[in-house]
Amino acid sequence: MGNSRLTVSLPSASLAEALEDVEAEVLRWDMSGPAPRPEIDLVVVPYIPGSEHLRWLDGVTTRLVQAQYLGYDGVAENLPPGHVYANARGVHETSTAELALALLLASQRGIGAFVRAAGVRTPEPTWYPSLADRRVLVLGQGGVGRAIEERLTPFEVEIVRVARTAREGVHGLAELPQLLPSVEAVVVAVPLTDKSVHLVGAEFLARLPDGAVVVNVARGRVADTAAILREARTGRLRFALDVTDPEPLPVDHELFTLPNVLISPHAGGMSTAMLPRVARLVRRQIELLSAGAEPVNVVLRR
Amino acid sequence: MGNSRLTVSLPSASLAEALEDVEAEVLRWDMSGPAPRPEIDLVVVPYIPGSEHLRWLDGVTTRLVQAQYLGYDGVAENLPPGHVYANARGVHETSTAELALALLLASQRGIGAFVRAAGVRTPEPTWYPSLADRRVLVLGQGGVGRAIEERLTPFEVEIVRVARTAREGVHGLAELPQLLPSVEAVVVAVPLTDKSVHLVGAEFLARLPDGAVVVNVARGRVADTAAILREARTGRLRFALDVTDPEPLPVDHELFTLPNVLISPHAGGMSTAMLPRVARLVRRQIELLSAGAEPVNVVLRR
Repeated sequence: MGNSRLTVSLPSASLAEALEDVEAEVLRWDMSGPAPRPEIDLVVVPYIPGSEHLRWLDGVTTRLVQAQYLGYDGVAENLPPGHVYANARGVHETSTAELALALLLASQRGIGAFVRAAGVRTPEPTWYPSLADRRVLVLGQGGVGRAIEERLTPFEVEIVRVARTAREGVHGLAELPQLLPSVEAVVVAVPLTDKSVHLVGAEFLARLPDGAVVVNVARGRVADTAAILREARTGRLRFALDVTDPEPLPVDHELFTLPNVLISPHAGGMSTAMLPRVARLVRRQIELLSAGAEPVNVVLRR
Repeated sequence: MGNSRLTVSLPSASLAEALEDVEAEVLRWDMSGPAPRPEIDLVVVPYIPGSEHLRWLDGVTTRLVQAQYLGYDGVAENLPPGHVYANARGVHETSTAELALALLLASQRGIGAFVRAAGVRTPEPTWYPSLADRRVLVLGQGGVGRAIEERLTPFEVEIVRVARTAREGVHGLAELPQLLPSVEAVVVAVPLTDKSVHLVGAEFLARLPDGAVVVNVARGRVADTAAILREARTGRLRFALDVTDPEPLPVDHELFTLPNVLISPHAGGMSTAMLPRVARLVRRQIELLSAGAEPVNVVLRR
């Protein structure tokens, strides 16, 4: 290696600016049309939903396709053969876990009610459920789940860890029916797979005790919107959803009308925490590829 | 001691229920009128604003007057002579620090905007400032300030500690002019004293950089409402206020109309975290008084 500089395509001005000092030939390509070169060592994919734009990689020679998303549902269907695809592990955990806590705390402590009351009425003194003293189930033990647990820990909660398969200190999905009746909050942070589609459905929700809150920062389809609506409508459960199915939720959707539902527009990764962490990952991949080493975060080879 | 059981007055049914097994003669007295007995060893004061009700202690013999508030501004003026007054240290730190984080995270991540958009429009994708990577000044190093720091720590922030007087790892108030231009968030958790009235005033706020957020969970008068309004109106700073001056803020107050201001109705202590912690403190005071030992949390002797 090292006989010539690496070629890197970056999809945005902000990322180009954050990486202006890298030892590489930097191109701009936002993947809204054909590639500017037939060979690009490292292609950084834009941070836009869907993966149809990956089809523009057909006929392009790459060494690595670096995404800015953690989840890669839909990628295998759109990525042409011959490419190696890396996800954005290490980029979004901070921001997504932070939003999960924002949604959970806002739900517990009535922030939505206070915003709605502003300028309309003086809110009655109301006793809201603290996060403290709650039993919180963290569903998913990947990077986001672990980042959520780190942030939850000082809040005097009891944490129940659940992952697909049980291991030391972590319950398996099969134990959910026994666990759910005893928890007062669930934070969903599992990847979307065939097995997790509608995992948070009618049966799951029915086992939660009255007044429990469900926070979803994973993917909308991990939950069953109709089942959520049924439990939300009666006021039995509370929901804080960064992701929905469909997404965005139509503005006239009934979920928007319910005081016990808080919805953010898939903003988990959309904070200023993202750019420096994407830049750090791309910088690392450039270093690894330049050194002829294996890139990190490879999740798919086509 | 021990020749007779302690007499304890409790102001509410919920507290009486939480303490139904204590070794004491329990009376109910909410201090809205004369005491039920001329001698009550331990009087637990109701959790209602103001301290005029303390005047009903005139002529009553007590060993300890136990408040449910942490702050005791106004108590010296209303507590008749001959009483020993304990504050509620250890009771509200959890709940108040939790609300401080809820307000701070909600402000950073646009929760107010999402609530206001619900059912009206689909929010545009917007890049909100993460809490991560921010330099956060925690003003006040009492129990609430420390509880806030504990909860902030996993959020990848840099914490700047400020207390009245400088000490190892803690800046003094005198250093504020130098510190404020470099911080992006301030969380106010100082007691209300002659020295802290309007501490967060025009000069303080002017030194903060554009876009900074100020969270107040202390007392409304620690900040200057007019100065807050001036900085909020231009959109230069953001505010999340659990306490205001006056309190409650009139429903037609301009602060309620501003998208960069989030106001909760002095709800810092009002969560389910409070009752078990008050009960724990009262239980401890009963044990100490029964054993002839000094009570904890004594902040005033009249």
